[in-house]
Amino acid sequence: MTTMDLNSDVGESFGRWELGDDAAVLALVTSANVACGFHAGDPSTLRETCRTAVAGGVAIGAQVGYRDLAGFGRRFIDVEPQHLADDVLYQIGALDALARAEGGRVAYVKPHGALYNTVVHHEEQAQAVVDAVRALDPTLPVLGLPGSVLLRRAEAAGLRTVREAFADRAYAPDGTLVPRREPGAVLHDPDQVAARVVRLATEGVVEAVDSSSVRVEADSVCVHGDSPGAVAMAGAVRAGLEAAGVTLRAFV
Amino acid sequence: MTTMDLNSDVGESFGRWELGDDAAVLALVTSANVACGFHAGDPSTLRETCRTAVAGGVAIGAQVGYRDLAGFGRRFIDVEPQHLADDVLYQIGALDALARAEGGRVAYVKPHGALYNTVVHHEEQAQAVVDAVRALDPTLPVLGLPGSVLLRRAEAAGLRTVREAFADRAYAPDGTLVPRREPGAVLHDPDQVAARVVRLATEGVVEAVDSSSVRVEADSVCVHGDSPGAVAMAGAVRAGLEAAGVTLRAFV
Amino acid sequence: MTTMDLNSDVGESFGRWELGDDAAVLALVTSANVACGFHAGDPSTLRETCRTAVAGGVAIGAQVGYRDLAGFGRRFIDVEPQHLADDVLYQIGALDALARAEGGRVAYVKPHGALYNTVVHHEEQAQAVVDAVRALDPTLPVLGLPGSVLLRRAEAAGLRTVREAFADRAYAPDGTLVPRREPGAVLHDPDQVAARVVRLATEGVVEAVDSSSVRVEADSVCVHGDSPGAVAMAGAVRAGLEAAGVTLRAFV
Amino acid sequence: MTTMDLNSDVGESFGRWELGDDAAVLALVTSANVACGFHAGDPSTLRETCRTAVAGGVAIGAQVGYRDLAGFGRRFIDVEPQHLADDVLYQIGALDALARAEGGRVAYVKPHGALYNTVVHHEEQAQAVVDAVRALDPTLPVLGLPGSVLLRRAEAAGLRTVREAFADRAYAPDGTLVPRREPGAVLHDPDQVAARVVRLATEGVVEAVDSSSVRVEADSVCVHGDSPGAVAMAGAVRAGLEAAGVTLRAFV
Repeated sequence: MTTMDLNSDVGESFGRWELGDDAAVLALVTSANVACGFHAGDPSTLRETCRTAVAGGVAIGAQVGYRDLAGFGRRFIDVEPQHLADDVLYQIGALDALARAEGGRVAYVKPHGALYNTVVHHEEQAQAVVDAVRALDPTLPVLGLPGSVLLRRAEAAGLRTVREAFADRAYAPDGTLVPRREPGAVLHDPDQVAARVVRLATEGVVEAVDSSSVRVEADSVCVHGDSPGAVAMAGAVRAGLEAAGVTLRAFV
Repeated sequence: MTTMDLNSDVGESFGRWELGDDAAVLALVTSANVACGFHAGDPSTLRETCRTAVAGGVAIGAQVGYRDLAGFGRRFIDVEPQHLADDVLYQIGALDALARAEGGRVAYVKPHGALYNTVVHHEEQAQAVVDAVRALDPTLPVLGLPGSVLLRRAEAAGLRTVREAFADRAYAPDGTLVPRREPGAVLHDPDQVAARVVRLATEGVVEAVDSSSVRVEADSVCVHGDSPGAVAMAGAVRAGLEAAGVTLRAFV
Repeated sequence: MTTMDLNSDVGESFGRWELGDDAAVLALVTSANVACGFHAGDPSTLRETCRTAVAGGVAIGAQVGYRDLAGFGRRFIDVEPQHLADDVLYQIGALDALARAEGGRVAYVKPHGALYNTVVHHEEQAQAVVDAVRALDPTLPVLGLPGSVLLRRAEAAGLRTVREAFADRAYAPDGTLVPRREPGAVLHDPDQVAARVVRLATEGVVEAVDSSSVRVEADSVCVHGDSPGAVAMAGAVRAGLEAAGVTLRAFV
Repeated sequence: MTTMDLNSDVGESFGRWELGDDAAVLALVTSANVACGFHAGDPSTLRETCRTAVAGGVAIGAQVGYRDLAGFGRRFIDVEPQHLADDVLYQIGALDALARAEGGRVAYVKPHGALYNTVVHHEEQAQAVVDAVRALDPTLPVLGLPGSVLLRRAEAAGLRTVREAFADRAYAPDGTLVPRREPGAVLHDPDQVAARVVRLATEGVVEAVDSSSVRVEADSVCVHGDSPGAVAMAGAVRAGLEAAGVTLRAFV
């Protein structure tokens, strides 16, 4: 039986400011990357998001980020690794308490935004994230890009790693993502995206930008939910997977 | 055998800004009220404070406060109770993760600053603190002022309550604290303060401002550490208690 | 010739989080209460808002608030008056620089949210706002509720005061606003609201909740823009005033 | 007549946290780099600093930094240039209002910490600072490192540039600073430092680490004030300059 996990970023409102349709997204995905307050997410938003996730049987992940509300965690910050590790611990713990108050718990960790991109290649910051997870709970899986420094170091540290693919991103023939700045990097057609994710889940293959077939080993597929179009695309992906007989199931 | 707990606020540095001599204080007290990042305390400071506390066998308490770095949590904020409860959960969880990374854990909860003063009388905010603790871990004790709404509601909710006395504060004949704005409200002589705490610990009595004796039932005595004089006073209190045969021991 | 000013809150986005349709609102009003970064408004949002206001000939006001992004400035904070005055100065200056970079300037000051409500009755905080304005530029008008401590103290300090009415709020027979918690406090029908504002502008009279006519002297009418319905109502108010021959003009 | 300007960072306290002896520093320097609230400096601290500077005839500079209280502005942040320009405008305006309330004004701009170091070489961020200053007031001088991208672009934009030397830093034979991580990069002997600054002011020459003499053209010399030793060194520098007949005078 083929299974796949769908993950999405949620809990990104902050106080008066609402972002994303978390209820709609949480009805579609199996894993929820919940913000932890440093790049987004006030405590009441986070708790409500955890409540909905628990009610729907969706796994809760701590989406840790840089301390940067003004930049939504999308700007690289040259934080000292020790401080970054402590920031990560702080965020995981904070979310975990809110999750526990709702009968859940943090079940995995995924870096957000600029931190996600940085730990693909930045040895010290990647190690800091790994150190934080290992210091808190060495059974917590780490979600990241296949081939990233983060996953390599997490594995070396004995952590479980979860490899992520992106539903709406084009792949190069070598299996890496086409950079966002290049034309065609982001796919917009829900049917095409759904078909690609089905093939990825059932064959482990994605059609690259040069029309070649490339092997992509993924344990989880990331979908978005920050616009009505994004939610519709996530719905198409889920429907496609279900129609293809793929069982949607969290990796944890 | 008579025992007493000594508690003090620590972990109140923030980034470049240092406050208090935590190492000196943690060598004297049995319970550490560690800031949680909302009024003070960056994650690295908190973790280092927890490390020192764990090494010294000092109990770690979560000193939760209003989200107000600029005001150091000393200004009342009219937060909605639900938001306050969630802010409290967030803070306890964040500190707990840092404590666990150092082999410790949050063992009690104490409100800080304006929140401490507010929950003496503010029913909704007091209940919010109680609700947060109960939702996370109903075995966590709550430290507060005897007679406060906080302790009354904590008790009603089935939480363990810990009654706090203040080493350097004058008491009225009815056992309440003399307000800070009144003359003589704060005591400055270490020997006098130490003698008062010894009497409190051994007889359960404090001499009030009118020279009458007043019963004060306390499970913990608060000392300060944010100036060299404060650390010296805390040292005098500890020495006095030890000389009087009182065993210093955390209440948890 | 009868004239009236229409004011509205704008510039309340923050980083990734968007709020309100500023372009639509700025095409309707004559005075823009621009957030200053303490309760909302990142610098780039504020500058863009100023650019649009300058291009449309809309007067720019500094909408100063409590330092509380998480609460959007809607929670009372018991700030010391001196600190509040300095917070107000900081905010006015910050916005003024962004306005000047776009060829405009801060032309008036209006407190936001909980600060607006507090300075209706809180003597020290009201005086702090007045002190700040006077210290910076005694020619800057202060916008507030008629009868408020703020306007009384501003007048006593020699500042120009601008009396504000609310388009969508019900009035008591004594000319005060019906509190929001009471039924009927907020009006929702654009035509009714427009008709009321026309009568206010042309006759200086509003129909109170008991159907009596009450004199309301207002130099400016506040409309909202944080939802499509609010923008539509603001449009109805403007159209109604223009149809009635009222000239829409900023008070500065 | 030979003249020299001495500058130092002040206004870096934040709320409860005090940093530096601003009163002592302001009695020694001729130009004060006052924090603007993004990396340090609450409004009341800034205003009091401006008051002391005005009273002492010390020029007030806006020391603009990254929005990073937790990192004290010492961590590079990959801010988009347009956002950085707007952050700089915001900060200059905020400080200017507090300065004006005390009878002063912002007379120059100096980047702080990681931003200072970044604009030595980062074209876009340097241009952003220049753009901000030019948009607000093209007569405001910009203080920076000789040879930096910042000063080159400021000059190209028609801004007045002020070249800065560092009293306690070793110089390479090519006139650049020896990087902090190298041995001997920071000088600690007040007499030696004072003698070097006198030679710099009177001959335009500094002895480099290889004992060669290197030309350093400086309009201002930076001294520190964040420790008792630093204040003592600043005092030695001032005394040395005065004894050598150098007139201490702000460049503005």
